[in-house]
Amino acid sequence: MAISTPEGYRALDDRSVAGYLAGVPALRERLGGEPAAWQVREVGDGNLNLVFIVEGPAGDLCVKQALPYVRLVGEGWPLDLRRAWFEHRAASIQSRHAAGLLPELLHFDERLFLIAMECCRPHIIMRRGMIDGVVYPRFAAHIVEYLATTLFHTSDMALPAAEKRELVATFSGNIELCKITEDLVFTDPYMVRDRNRWTSPQLDDVAAEIRGDAELKRAVSRLKIKFLSKTEALLHGDLHTGSIMVTADDSKVIDPEFAVMGPMGFDVGKLLGNLLLCHFSQRGHERTPAERDPYRRWILATVEEVWIGFARRFVELWTAHPTGDGYPAPLFDGAAGRASLRQAQAEYMTRLFGEALGFAGAAMIRRTLGLAHNIDMERIVDADRRADCERRNLRLARELVVEARSFADIAAVTARAAEIDTA
Amino acid sequence: MAISTPEGYRALDDRSVAGYLAGVPALRERLGGEPAAWQVREVGDGNLNLVFIVEGPAGDLCVKQALPYVRLVGEGWPLDLRRAWFEHRAASIQSRHAAGLLPELLHFDERLFLIAMECCRPHIIMRRGMIDGVVYPRFAAHIVEYLATTLFHTSDMALPAAEKRELVATFSGNIELCKITEDLVFTDPYMVRDRNRWTSPQLDDVAAEIRGDAELKRAVSRLKIKFLSKTEALLHGDLHTGSIMVTADDSKVIDPEFAVMGPMGFDVGKLLGNLLLCHFSQRGHERTPAERDPYRRWILATVEEVWIGFARRFVELWTAHPTGDGYPAPLFDGAAGRASLRQAQAEYMTRLFGEALGFAGAAMIRRTLGLAHNIDMERIVDADRRADCERRNLRLARELVVEARSFADIAAVTARAAEIDTA
Repeated sequence: MAISTPEGYRALDDRSVAGYLAGVPALRERLGGEPAAWQVREVGDGNLNLVFIVEGPAGDLCVKQALPYVRLVGEGWPLDLRRAWFEHRAASIQSRHAAGLLPELLHFDERLFLIAMECCRPHIIMRRGMIDGVVYPRFAAHIVEYLATTLFHTSDMALPAAEKRELVATFSGNIELCKITEDLVFTDPYMVRDRNRWTSPQLDDVAAEIRGDAELKRAVSRLKIKFLSKTEALLHGDLHTGSIMVTADDSKVIDPEFAVMGPMGFDVGKLLGNLLLCHFSQRGHERTPAERDPYRRWILATVEEVWIGFARRFVELWTAHPTGDGYPAPLFDGAAGRASLRQAQAEYMTRLFGEALGFAGAAMIRRTLGLAHNIDMERIVDADRRADCERRNLRLARELVVEARSFADIAAVTARAAEIDTA
Repeated sequence: MAISTPEGYRALDDRSVAGYLAGVPALRERLGGEPAAWQVREVGDGNLNLVFIVEGPAGDLCVKQALPYVRLVGEGWPLDLRRAWFEHRAASIQSRHAAGLLPELLHFDERLFLIAMECCRPHIIMRRGMIDGVVYPRFAAHIVEYLATTLFHTSDMALPAAEKRELVATFSGNIELCKITEDLVFTDPYMVRDRNRWTSPQLDDVAAEIRGDAELKRAVSRLKIKFLSKTEALLHGDLHTGSIMVTADDSKVIDPEFAVMGPMGFDVGKLLGNLLLCHFSQRGHERTPAERDPYRRWILATVEEVWIGFARRFVELWTAHPTGDGYPAPLFDGAAGRASLRQAQAEYMTRLFGEALGFAGAAMIRRTLGLAHNIDMERIVDADRRADCERRNLRLARELVVEARSFADIAAVTARAAEIDTA
């Protein structure tokens, strides 16, 4: 291997996984029977890691191992193995707060940078289901609970400053993964870079327009500064429909390897942006015009439910557990104090709403003009059709980044999305 | 000693200091001659530490050692010895950027939590000079350079994210000192606490009014959240006129033991707030009415020069050294890019100005109603006279915290200060 790795590290493969797992008693027991009989499949379809599904007579599990480079690119882009440690640490913390909404963690190997966890079955990656037009009626409720609990309980409203500063110190080490976000989300799409790509030549004009859009570049740079210098809560860091596994009844959030103490609006906004992008992709998946209208309505209703539900649940947690050093409880006691706190909460959520919209727009732009694209759009084979969807997506995205404050509420956002989609 | 301390730690005293210094060759050489002949004086007049001035035939130096408790209070308030490490680390970083504006560092002992540094002579603590009405004509220029260089060069505009996140990780460990700020500046003055004190009974009414002021408590809590969750730059963390040593020609900033990656407005605002508080104390130091009018004018002119000079110098550094990951240079190239960056800089400084005013007001309130007071006011023996000064100080302070945005520029602040002072 060209890239040097810490002593004891080796990348597993289909053949060596069983031998490794056989050496971990709890995992061996979970799988049952003889290791030689275990079925192993490498299923990683993400951009970074190895992922194995292992099935034994008694049970199954999922093994995720970090490679010392970006899988999507190869050894030419080395990447810190310790992202597995940050993922495990973040998932451990989040699991305490959002019980049942992440896969159960079974094992962590700090030499192999390997996590063994529950296999989410029969779940599928939500984005794949959405391309097929599948409705997930309980998704909004689940993700609201995940977002509100993981963000609130790691924020200054819940934590004493000493605990919060320890989290900040720990996750400030996740430098290389954050750098990917900083470059790919907030910088690359706005300049000429070899690794950018878009539907060409159809979008050449709008890509150039965005590279020359001074107001947009200032606005996205303000968002980048927030990402670099706000440590509001422990973020998942890459929360989109490709990081969520679903069934009709269940949702599991996976892959928090980009975890960092950052601005809450980043997690909320990235998710909203990916839902909105998916909404704009529907036109490309229709066999007949308006075929996907009900699904469009479901997506936009979900966008509304996610924000409204999150804001309500976050404030509910804040009111019930004002245990942090931010907005200290003794300053808000009594009837007048409670009324004042409600006002403070409303102001807080208004500010957070604007930031979330900005981050949503940034996510929609980078998935259209940057390195990593979404299959929501990529699966649209006809380039002209795809470009038409992407152009509408970019139009809302710019408004969200530049004019976030002009949207009075989330209904104004979904109304504008529908308007742009049907124009 | 009732408080347990790390192995190897012992508090030095007048007698043991020379023996210790004799064992450090560079310091022994600096002092010269025989240790028995060295003159040692303990001069610590701060709230936390031991400070010795040591003079030998060849030279002198200053020794600052952390005690395992708050000196002002005693062993009942234990305090992390590692603050000396954070102070030394911060001073080392700041000295690289603001050469000549901090005492030269000579030695750090990680077992004794002791710093040896240049003795600033014939400098005096600026606050003492200001009580005597001494004008420091070069002070504004010096402190502008200190603030602009130390804040800019540790910000996202100067640093790659990797270096910035390392600073954040390191200084997030300075938990106990930050907790003092969080409690004493942003919380205590707004609630009933035994350790609060004020000129009583004269200010009993206004102290109660502030404890019941819902709008003020929301505003100061928003500032506290910024202090807890913004990591814009490496702060001194306690920059007031008691942390600056001056002569007519020179200024040295001392005591950065509260250093943390925090909101830049905190350093700038704390200094402005302490200058404004000093302005309101002048009435108490006059032997005849209007005697201190010229000095009032100098203080307010200094307030203006500090903000205007800081804002100008910070932007100048940003334009000359856009080496950080925030506002990435490639997004702001060419003539249009430069014009856009100027607009971004103006917006950035406007936001920072509002935050600085808020932090200024918070500093003015905590020094009047909290645990630690300033001798600017304390030296006014007549309690009625002192209370009159303090009441005016609180009046502007509340406006700065609650209505920061209503001040269009720093001249509006100084005009209002003069208006309240003469009302």
